Amino acid sequence: MLTNLFTPKAVAVVGASQSPDKVGHSILKNIIDLGFEGQVYPVNPKSTEILGKKCYPDISALPDGVDLVVISIPAKFVPQVIEECGKKHIGSAVVISAGFKEVGREGKDLERRLENAAIMSGVRVLGPNCVGFINTSNKLNASFAADCPEPGDIAVISQSGAMCTSIIDWSLKHHIGFSKLISIGNKADLDEEILIESLGEDKDTNVIVGYLEDIKNGPHFIRTAEKVTRNKPIILIKAGTTAAGASAASSHTGSIAGAQMAYECAFHSSGVMQAPSLEALFDYAQVFAYQPLPKSDRVAIVTNAGGLGIMATDAIENAGLQFAKPSEATVEKLKSFLSPAANVHNPFDILGDARAETYGKAVETALADDGIDSLVVLLSPQTMTEAGNAASEIVKAAKKFNKPVVASFVGARRVAEGIEVLQKNRIPHYATPERAVGAINVLVDYTKWRSAPRKVIKRFSVNSTKVDRVINLNKKRKFTNIGEQDSKSILSAYGFTVPVCHLSRSVDDAVSAASAIGYPVVMKIVSPDIVHKSDAGGVKVGLKGPSEVADAFELMMTRIKARCPDARLHGVLVQEMVMEGREIIIGMTRDPQFGPMLMFGLGGIYVEVLKDVSFQLAPITAEAALQMIVGTKTYNLLKGVRGEKSADMHLVAECIQRISQLSMDFPTIQELDINPLKVSSELSRAVAVDARVRIL
Amino acid sequence: MLTNLFTPKAVAVVGASQSPDKVGHSILKNIIDLGFEGQVYPVNPKSTEILGKKCYPDISALPDGVDLVVISIPAKFVPQVIEECGKKHIGSAVVISAGFKEVGREGKDLERRLENAAIMSGVRVLGPNCVGFINTSNKLNASFAADCPEPGDIAVISQSGAMCTSIIDWSLKHHIGFSKLISIGNKADLDEEILIESLGEDKDTNVIVGYLEDIKNGPHFIRTAEKVTRNKPIILIKAGTTAAGASAASSHTGSIAGAQMAYECAFHSSGVMQAPSLEALFDYAQVFAYQPLPKSDRVAIVTNAGGLGIMATDAIENAGLQFAKPSEATVEKLKSFLSPAANVHNPFDILGDARAETYGKAVETALADDGIDSLVVLLSPQTMTEAGNAASEIVKAAKKFNKPVVASFVGARRVAEGIEVLQKNRIPHYATPERAVGAINVLVDYTKWRSAPRKVIKRFSVNSTKVDRVINLNKKRKFTNIGEQDSKSILSAYGFTVPVCHLSRSVDDAVSAASAIGYPVVMKIVSPDIVHKSDAGGVKVGLKGPSEVADAFELMMTRIKARCPDARLHGVLVQEMVMEGREIIIGMTRDPQFGPMLMFGLGGIYVEVLKDVSFQLAPITAEAALQMIVGTKTYNLLKGVRGEKSADMHLVAECIQRISQLSMDFPTIQELDINPLKVSSELSRAVAVDARVRIL
Repeated sequence: MLTNLFTPKAVAVVGASQSPDKVGHSILKNIIDLGFEGQVYPVNPKSTEILGKKCYPDISALPDGVDLVVISIPAKFVPQVIEECGKKHIGSAVVISAGFKEVGREGKDLERRLENAAIMSGVRVLGPNCVGFINTSNKLNASFAADCPEPGDIAVISQSGAMCTSIIDWSLKHHIGFSKLISIGNKADLDEEILIESLGEDKDTNVIVGYLEDIKNGPHFIRTAEKVTRNKPIILIKAGTTAAGASAASSHTGSIAGAQMAYECAFHSSGVMQAPSLEALFDYAQVFAYQPLPKSDRVAIVTNAGGLGIMATDAIENAGLQFAKPSEATVEKLKSFLSPAANVHNPFDILGDARAETYGKAVETALADDGIDSLVVLLSPQTMTEAGNAASEIVKAAKKFNKPVVASFVGARRVAEGIEVLQKNRIPHYATPERAVGAINVLVDYTKWRSAPRKVIKRFSVNSTKVDRVINLNKKRKFTNIGEQDSKSILSAYGFTVPVCHLSRSVDDAVSAASAIGYPVVMKIVSPDIVHKSDAGGVKVGLKGPSEVADAFELMMTRIKARCPDARLHGVLVQEMVMEGREIIIGMTRDPQFGPMLMFGLGGIYVEVLKDVSFQLAPITAEAALQMIVGTKTYNLLKGVRGEKSADMHLVAECIQRISQLSMDFPTIQELDINPLKVSSELSRAVAVDARVRIL
Repeated sequence: MLTNLFTPKAVAVVGASQSPDKVGHSILKNIIDLGFEGQVYPVNPKSTEILGKKCYPDISALPDGVDLVVISIPAKFVPQVIEECGKKHIGSAVVISAGFKEVGREGKDLERRLENAAIMSGVRVLGPNCVGFINTSNKLNASFAADCPEPGDIAVISQSGAMCTSIIDWSLKHHIGFSKLISIGNKADLDEEILIESLGEDKDTNVIVGYLEDIKNGPHFIRTAEKVTRNKPIILIKAGTTAAGASAASSHTGSIAGAQMAYECAFHSSGVMQAPSLEALFDYAQVFAYQPLPKSDRVAIVTNAGGLGIMATDAIENAGLQFAKPSEATVEKLKSFLSPAANVHNPFDILGDARAETYGKAVETALADDGIDSLVVLLSPQTMTEAGNAASEIVKAAKKFNKPVVASFVGARRVAEGIEVLQKNRIPHYATPERAVGAINVLVDYTKWRSAPRKVIKRFSVNSTKVDRVINLNKKRKFTNIGEQDSKSILSAYGFTVPVCHLSRSVDDAVSAASAIGYPVVMKIVSPDIVHKSDAGGVKVGLKGPSEVADAFELMMTRIKARCPDARLHGVLVQEMVMEGREIIIGMTRDPQFGPMLMFGLGGIYVEVLKDVSFQLAPITAEAALQMIVGTKTYNLLKGVRGEKSADMHLVAECIQRISQLSMDFPTIQELDINPLKVSSELSRAVAVDARVRIL
């Protein structure tokens, strides 16, 4: 918990000003106005008093006991002030000033100086180029925002300062309260990871939401977020499509993966909920702040309008939630007080003339049913409808149970009073049934995450010494693309089955190898300079006898010499032909931000065309590896169609885990494709028929 | 135009009542209160005067000249009243009364009587079981809705009565005006098609929006909608997942297609925009009602907050819209009045301290650029921001150009005045940047539809007599699943290339056929009782010589006799083995609502696993057939990967069109699969390697 920063005993404002149109004035005024109970000291060599407070000429002149300074002076003076803070044992600073890395080269240098000053002096710095922060629990408004939000359970982090002002303005209207609102600016020192960790420990915060444009340190972020989300939900908008990966990818995996995908994987693996829009961000935040988590995913609907019920039903189906089936007791109970035309099965349609009392009884009956985990209450303002009273009855009924209830009163003026009642009583209200169901959906997602077992990464016993040797040999020869044979040696050392093979350098050699292996065989050219062997005519399959092998050898050597005169040819690989099995791909590409991204999907030559693949970050658990498989259409193929025997999914998941381990053990491996990995259901084995590895 | 209904000279209310809690009272009061200028006659045998109007005992007693009666009496009396209307030459009726098909068997019979009464009497009937309608242009509120919307350009049709009241309530707050609001109820007579046609001709209506749960007559609806959307946009919510197709499908196409897909195809082929939610329905309606259509899809953004700009940029990318590139002149112009820190490239960031005037100038500069087709204006309420004035300046600038402008002022209280100014001046405002971009996106979609050439269905010269003969022969034998050979005859008659083949009944016959065709050959069992031949062991491929053919024949006959003792075996088909080409599927399944749905996609044995397919309704144009291809990943496969030659897309599109023609010509054909259709780029031909047809 950043105690100095968020709950200081005394605050100084460097650059405080008497002129009301200066930011330094607004900040001082905001601190005083909200009623911060500690001391507040303006700092400005040109004044003796500002807003009734004694003004100090500089940091050194301040009384002791200041924990936080808020700085709003020209950028170039900021690093020095931070150093002075250090000398004065002031623990934290907020740098409002702009003019750092956002303004180009010179600003970048200045920001580096600021960063160094922070590190050397031990002062924790928020910003620069930020709006500041607001802590509603100790009434500290250390920002120049024009308004201040109501107190509440939600903490907001924003990488955009302007977004903070939009968010505050919007929150005031909808009675959404915040524990803290933090503008993180350029993140020279304090970044999203440290702040999220701190908010994770903050007793005033139950939900953390954020708007981020980038993440400073991928693996750190994941580790922290994963820890925090076990206790508190984190909901983020990740805005901005990041620039495409630096170097052109040579693997299938590398060419399909992207920065956007890496962020998705990172959020997924750390339990962070991603919001698709600003609206969704607060749709989700409210339900987490105000409602309990559901036991499971069975949703029911109470409505006074059939149409609204149908729209919510569609949304439940589209989200993949379960449509709750009421018990017989519930049906009977509903029948006892609803008119015969009402629908006593989910969606419960209590009809257009339903009064407030009927709403209350229907909601209570639904929530009492053990087969219903959460409830969406819909209302259309018809002639007999009493939206305000209905809301009160819904609130009363909902309070008797520990199950999530959300509402959508569709309309405006005639439902305004009802919406007000709901919001004041912490029943989240949404403008449409679809958004109400969307909120339940993230609750269910988060519940699943929370109740999932802790991550256990299985370590397989492998021969890493061998891999070391193979990689070093290739490095010595300056090969970054490791050839097929060496790639397979690496895989074999990590427990993969590879086809029997022999590198032959002459026709006779090839023929005798083939008969030792057994026909039919596959032959492949071996050259460090040829990545796509088939394209170069360097692959022949299904060779059935000595003469075919001899012909293939000669043809290959002459043809490739002619096509690629500069390629170094090491010979021809004679290989067992793996007949049986379905072709999948397992791959890895190293994301510059988040590290190894694993890929699973449909293999073969059309990987990049059909793109039936899924991604996860390494290291991966057995459960997550299985999830990767289930998340593709290839899963159905592996399960078998029309009575085919299913492949062993645990075997495939294990292959993914082994690649995960290999990627973590050898950071030099940049990309890796096993394509195809032939998975046989009959033999319950997976053979790495072809593979490629790229190292640094 | 339903003149009698919407613009009657005189209206009677049957079931008018003196008691204020009766619906018949509300209707009469609504008509009088809104100020309908024609005569209004209450009808009720028990009263002599209601709400100051002379009351008539029954229809026959009414003065002449009544065009419309609104009926709110017990359901069982309604059919008779309709008959009386007919006798009195009253052209139209609105049946508010409930108690028809929505209440089960008896009600269904009553509704049929009502329907017959309407047909026999010539009275056009809206309802039953509806809220009525409101026509704002002649101030006729023939409904029992508690409120009345403002006049405007948007017509609303709703199959849910409750939805009408929600919509009115909501519209009043957001200053959205309606030309007509029509509750269509059970659609006994007037349905969505007739109403849409009528609204298409309505000079007061510029946009038609609707909430539908089903469509009464698929092909009629498509024809009408297609005509109307050439002039006016139609935006619909289709709620409710319809029950799955009646009979279990025997084709791949049939098992992948569904009712939901059929609706999507129907909307797509008739230019109807589908709204994913109630919110989207009116998001879209506003932009169509208030803004011109863009020339093309190049979108620019003006913002005072970087974060909002990034979110809009993400949305533009996700929607597949073009991000406009400003001309040099625009960049120079912007530089001339913006501060140096501003971003003069799209998104135009005019910075947090931008005043109203700056907004006006930036919007005007952007709209003056020929390379910018539409504009999204974003605003975050920062300290210096003047939301109201900024809105006025934006409005002023936007009026100088004929380009769509939409806005999102993100916040609440501090932007309220600005939003009010925008809405009153018909600049659509959205709560988030994402929704603003979503509105531009549907404008672009509709523009594309409007500017697309009129549908021309090409007719190919075919041999339909032959198809007739084949089908009749099969019908005579009571075969609903037409065998492979006959299926291919049908295809061949419609211009498809099929492999050379011969039906052999003995080993010798098979061997001599094979040598005539040329090795390798394929052999397939022929039986009307075996649909999935490979599963039954009835297919052998790549047979290379007489002995292999002889073995296959004997093995197949014995094996299948053992496995399927009841199957009638007609022999074994010996067939040319089509070596070259990529495997696609073209299929058709007949939707009970919308007729033949064509499918295109990745062929082979895993069609249903990989499901890389697209659908359209027949009859199909060449352009739409090409679109079907482009809409799949299989397209990339046909284009060729890694330097492969591309397949002839027009050839594939022609195959789809030929299946379209066949489906239209022979309504008895229920399902059809060509799988695989082998498309060879080298030979520029497509061969129907296997096919199956199911008839009624």
